[in-house]
Amino acid sequence: MKIETKVEKFTDPLYLESGRILEPYELAYETYGQLSHDKSNVIVVCHALTGSHHAAGRYEGERKAGWWDGIIGDGKAIDTTKYFVICVNVIGSCFGSTGPLSPKYPSAKEYRLQFPVITISDMVKAQRNLFDRLGIHHAEAIIGGSMGGMQALCFAIEHPNFAKRHIMLASTYATQPWAIAFNKVAREAIIKDPTFKNGEYGSYKIKQEGFNGLSIGRMAGHISYLSPHSMQEKFGKAYDEKDGLYDLFGRYQVEKYLDYNSRNFVTWFDPLSFLYITKAINIFDAMRNYDSLEDSLSRINSKITLISFKADMLFLPQEMKHIEDTMIKLNKAHLCDYTEIESDYGHDAFLVELPKFEEIIMRALER
Amino acid sequence: MKIETKVEKFTDPLYLESGRILEPYELAYETYGQLSHDKSNVIVVCHALTGSHHAAGRYEGERKAGWWDGIIGDGKAIDTTKYFVICVNVIGSCFGSTGPLSPKYPSAKEYRLQFPVITISDMVKAQRNLFDRLGIHHAEAIIGGSMGGMQALCFAIEHPNFAKRHIMLASTYATQPWAIAFNKVAREAIIKDPTFKNGEYGSYKIKQEGFNGLSIGRMAGHISYLSPHSMQEKFGKAYDEKDGLYDLFGRYQVEKYLDYNSRNFVTWFDPLSFLYITKAINIFDAMRNYDSLEDSLSRINSKITLISFKADMLFLPQEMKHIEDTMIKLNKAHLCDYTEIESDYGHDAFLVELPKFEEIIMRALER
Repeated sequence: MKIETKVEKFTDPLYLESGRILEPYELAYETYGQLSHDKSNVIVVCHALTGSHHAAGRYEGERKAGWWDGIIGDGKAIDTTKYFVICVNVIGSCFGSTGPLSPKYPSAKEYRLQFPVITISDMVKAQRNLFDRLGIHHAEAIIGGSMGGMQALCFAIEHPNFAKRHIMLASTYATQPWAIAFNKVAREAIIKDPTFKNGEYGSYKIKQEGFNGLSIGRMAGHISYLSPHSMQEKFGKAYDEKDGLYDLFGRYQVEKYLDYNSRNFVTWFDPLSFLYITKAINIFDAMRNYDSLEDSLSRINSKITLISFKADMLFLPQEMKHIEDTMIKLNKAHLCDYTEIESDYGHDAFLVELPKFEEIIMRALER
Repeated sequence: MKIETKVEKFTDPLYLESGRILEPYELAYETYGQLSHDKSNVIVVCHALTGSHHAAGRYEGERKAGWWDGIIGDGKAIDTTKYFVICVNVIGSCFGSTGPLSPKYPSAKEYRLQFPVITISDMVKAQRNLFDRLGIHHAEAIIGGSMGGMQALCFAIEHPNFAKRHIMLASTYATQPWAIAFNKVAREAIIKDPTFKNGEYGSYKIKQEGFNGLSIGRMAGHISYLSPHSMQEKFGKAYDEKDGLYDLFGRYQVEKYLDYNSRNFVTWFDPLSFLYITKAINIFDAMRNYDSLEDSLSRINSKITLISFKADMLFLPQEMKHIEDTMIKLNKAHLCDYTEIESDYGHDAFLVELPKFEEIIMRALER
């Protein structure tokens, strides 16, 4: 599989939904496979909150492959011998696209809290500009899980003629208060962390003491990504063998897991990006700027495949079902299929339970 | 209804499960109604994590009545014209019983992090000592929700001849990793808060800047007390009318609610008590010191009433059901009844959905 990682620079302004302007801006992206001569074999993959454009393959010396490597590759469900797959890093991110730590032109000083609030629509608009730049005016499919699913839905509604199919996993039509509440804990922990310094901290890239707020926020996130059953299976009531049960700071294995993952997280993710991207997720609402969900979904004229996971504690299956129900109301049932997958993994199922849904994706791509 | 609030002092040692000793210690408690001459009309009510012995009635000038006022009182489900109700504040608490901010005898210095880890068994043992002191050697029932339910179960197993009935609501036989994970976020936020000063902060009673950790922890707790549906009903996607949608720190109503409640919480609850009581909850396991749940439940020879709530996101209905299933295996089905109540309120249902279960409690008391 041929992998290319690039950054594209734009000097023309990106007009944001908020009325503000991002200018100039850059987008980091990665491609897998070969673009056909008529550019007709494009599949766009959209990443989630803490994901990046590195969706598949392994860089030299890299321990872990891209976040959806199990499904993207030669002969895999998203077959790179057939398709040219593009994954674009969203604006606001800390992985190479323009975000809060980018310089605020014309100064060399970073935006920090001066960075404008961005929305899912803005992320999608920027991606669309990239595709235009690459001469790609059509995609076979746009696929994404979680925040990636929001982008897919947004493409379907706001750019209805760009892609033939949209596949959403573990996502929603509008972020509900339950998910906003989880984000709230994380956001509050970041903002109240004295090492955050109102956004004027040094750099998250320098491994240092601090960023406890981001770390605590990640813990809250982890709860919402798992499920009671997956935690039970994974950890049970196992206690750290070196800790005392009657030691106030003694830890269960589940606590050690949260410690490890959250402490590790701050070494590779940026607190400001976390604030901006969770804001985009919080305010995602496919009904905004439309009269109703029916009104917004009525714009869709492509195939929509919806995949939810039974134990998803962040975006509940019923939220995805609501999209199908609305499509049926609109007499667009023929454009839409919905599957609820049995899985105890919770929200993370879209990253780990690939064998349970890759056939649905293959079938959707063949239709 | 006659209400009395008292503190009882014990100079003899309380031998804790950990092997450590609490000496001396005090227990704050409140009683409702009149003890019958033969002391045969006692009902014990056990409180939850942030609850207190003030379960019913209203102190002079008090805005809000006790936490279970809707169910305890003259003519109410737990009828104080008939029963003498006692609610004891648990050790470790900050509401009058001995806890981490109590002086460590013989010094006048507070325990702080020197306070021993306590367990649900320890809380119950201390209560039992209080009842002995009051000459009460029998109770008609022991009732509690959440951590209160753990105490009720612990009474049933470890003091099997003390009470005739035990009623548990929204609780579990052993705290599962999912609940431990929520507590972990809270505990971590407290410990990492610089104003916590390794337990050597001034006092939570002085309204001051700080205790952000406890406040963030409370937010995480609030999520687990509610449910996706109750949040949806309560807040929907309503946004604060004074905040801008594209303002990074603009808030949805659900965020305002979490802000308000968590900021308020730090003015009336102590971070160290929170650490010690969540530790007791985390390590609660009715199987500890027994071979199995069957082994521990085999000691029960009183009636057990189990009430769970469908949308409880903290202690799932299946955890309560597991107690019933085990009782059936033990041929003790006749001692046990289980009801799962339809409620969208989540864990908090045991505090707010009284009309849905007060009849079950009345029936249990009459049997």
